[in-house]
Amino acid sequence: MKSVYMDHASATPVRKQVIEAMLPYFDRHFGNPSTVYDMGSNVKGVLEEQRAKVAGLIGARTEEIIFTSSGAEANNLAIKGIALARQKKGKHIIISAIEHHSVINSARFLERMDFEVTFLPVDKYGLVAAERLSKAITPETILVSIMHANNEIGTIQPISELSAICREKGVVFHTDAVASVGNIPVDVSELNVDLLSLSGAPLGAPKGVGALYFRDNLRLMPLIHGGIQENGRRGGTENVPGIVGIGVASKLAKNEFPEKVNHLQKVRDLLFSRISKQIEHLKFTGHPEMRLPGHASFCIEAIEGEALIFMLTREGVYANTGSACASKVLKTSPVLMAIGIPSDLAQGSIVFTLNSCNRIDEVDYALEKLCFAVEKLRSLSPLWRKQATT
Amino acid sequence: MKSVYMDHASATPVRKQVIEAMLPYFDRHFGNPSTVYDMGSNVKGVLEEQRAKVAGLIGARTEEIIFTSSGAEANNLAIKGIALARQKKGKHIIISAIEHHSVINSARFLERMDFEVTFLPVDKYGLVAAERLSKAITPETILVSIMHANNEIGTIQPISELSAICREKGVVFHTDAVASVGNIPVDVSELNVDLLSLSGAPLGAPKGVGALYFRDNLRLMPLIHGGIQENGRRGGTENVPGIVGIGVASKLAKNEFPEKVNHLQKVRDLLFSRISKQIEHLKFTGHPEMRLPGHASFCIEAIEGEALIFMLTREGVYANTGSACASKVLKTSPVLMAIGIPSDLAQGSIVFTLNSCNRIDEVDYALEKLCFAVEKLRSLSPLWRKQATT
Repeated sequence: MKSVYMDHASATPVRKQVIEAMLPYFDRHFGNPSTVYDMGSNVKGVLEEQRAKVAGLIGARTEEIIFTSSGAEANNLAIKGIALARQKKGKHIIISAIEHHSVINSARFLERMDFEVTFLPVDKYGLVAAERLSKAITPETILVSIMHANNEIGTIQPISELSAICREKGVVFHTDAVASVGNIPVDVSELNVDLLSLSGAPLGAPKGVGALYFRDNLRLMPLIHGGIQENGRRGGTENVPGIVGIGVASKLAKNEFPEKVNHLQKVRDLLFSRISKQIEHLKFTGHPEMRLPGHASFCIEAIEGEALIFMLTREGVYANTGSACASKVLKTSPVLMAIGIPSDLAQGSIVFTLNSCNRIDEVDYALEKLCFAVEKLRSLSPLWRKQATT
Repeated sequence: MKSVYMDHASATPVRKQVIEAMLPYFDRHFGNPSTVYDMGSNVKGVLEEQRAKVAGLIGARTEEIIFTSSGAEANNLAIKGIALARQKKGKHIIISAIEHHSVINSARFLERMDFEVTFLPVDKYGLVAAERLSKAITPETILVSIMHANNEIGTIQPISELSAICREKGVVFHTDAVASVGNIPVDVSELNVDLLSLSGAPLGAPKGVGALYFRDNLRLMPLIHGGIQENGRRGGTENVPGIVGIGVASKLAKNEFPEKVNHLQKVRDLLFSRISKQIEHLKFTGHPEMRLPGHASFCIEAIEGEALIFMLTREGVYANTGSACASKVLKTSPVLMAIGIPSDLAQGSIVFTLNSCNRIDEVDYALEKLCFAVEKLRSLSPLWRKQATT
């Protein structure tokens, strides 16, 4: 059976060059980077090379990168690490209403530690308004965290505008860039952020590795306390093969702009226009222009997203209904709620996320199966039949 | 040049079978376990199989295992997770003076959170006395954490005796078993512990994966907040290849007892006896019997451990001076201080840690190089010449 995989935000295969680069670090160069002898110090040198590559991808300096085990860990380290290190200055933090679970639940954790958390609403496109952020900042505010791009609706925030407000008021600014790094060029100076989280997996590195950018010598309470690793900022023996993976993948990613963006946009735009022509009663979600180039998301009326995904999967088409981390737990996506989608419509959420490997000709196949599945599911829906007859 | 690697506590090569088992999960079975469709749910099934294997290695039930990114993360999750979840019951915790940095620094973190921490002294062998533990427990005590085996001196604690005291008093008991799991049979029921940390690397799994055993439904504050992964106890997309690695390595390890222990003991005992015959003025550290089978540790008078390691490395012999996580930061090992080694003698600490791959005939080579290096270094030492002439 033909297979069209368009759920790259959930998972993407590790790139061949990345696997090849990692392999020697499993059993040949297996030394512990913290040991004093050559077998370890050589590996330590390799780690620092990877750190430079990750830094290079986002315009940071090498020493501003901390390796973590995931984007989620990077988010936890940023939010809790800054909040706990700066709590004497104030105990108020601000996040947007559409953050990733790892940000929201880190903030909820801080609430139990007597921090106050403001959840900033977003507009119908998922955008945070600068003046709203400005008004929400109090003398107690120590940290603002607003994601760069949203994985469910694809919207890209005007981060530099938001971070400028924080910079002016002396408030630390963090952005979760897990969904954007690798898909669009990301530069920490342009974004003007103090901290930025990223993950290896979307770059074609393996699961189990991520990184946190932190500006200069920003004080940060470690999340994983331990030894001297990561300059005392993150304990535990370094995941050497994983770090080699994210280093190599970062270097590859950097060299692929802007061609990658153009390609993703072309395929995505075709998908968008075909779908809007062929499927009635659907609503695109997220911002029409300020969005990830390979991201198409919409809600289809009178459809249950999970049923749709199952039907598509049977035909070899892989997409998602919302975020992989959230699926199975939540009846209605908080992101869709936040942008004002009614909960019955939100049930019909479907998200296509593309990668360089997706081809123009895959669009037709995906579309054909999508139309078939929607028609089938609607024919079974009493709600739809009622609507059709009125 | 011949190479004899005897620093397996710092790092050990990933086993061939483990690498082979992991490979398909990088680019073929790359799905996100949290997605609803087959490509993800199949991987979710594979994760649960690995969980069963890790559980099987330590006599736990499958659902009692949380995967982490390292032993250090498991220790952080155990210490902070229990303390923060139970702080209403009391804010006193007890650890031994010779714990791993990830335990000690987690406890130090809790001190900043207004917890009180008691550091239990140990005897000259590194053992915690049961009556001392018993006396240290107050009505405020909510957690005791005492490591199973110490990585620097090899001593194995009488955990079941210590945990029985805690069980009786209703205090949660955690043990850091990173140094023991894989080297000796470990059973959570026999040890009678509530939580146990382990790491994949010592088992021949890759760096970047560990696990925490937690009894039944013990409440635990997550360390990495996020989505639904690990039953809501640890956020972030699962490190699927790493988890396959630790699963396969656990199964292999289980089948290798008791032969492995016998082999390690044989090689280690030979190393011990040869060294004690050929090198004067040295002191073995740790307990003579209650110790890891592949672990030989001692302090050599008038020797600087790091210089010794460098000389040995030049001859292809790899050992360590203390713990890899601590090297480079600390002048004197807190573990050696705790067992009463004078600080000048502690400088000459050397640790050999063996694995199944070490052979009897490697002992001669290591010994020859060790004797040569010790003689050379002592000949350069004014301290030694003075001692020799008196």
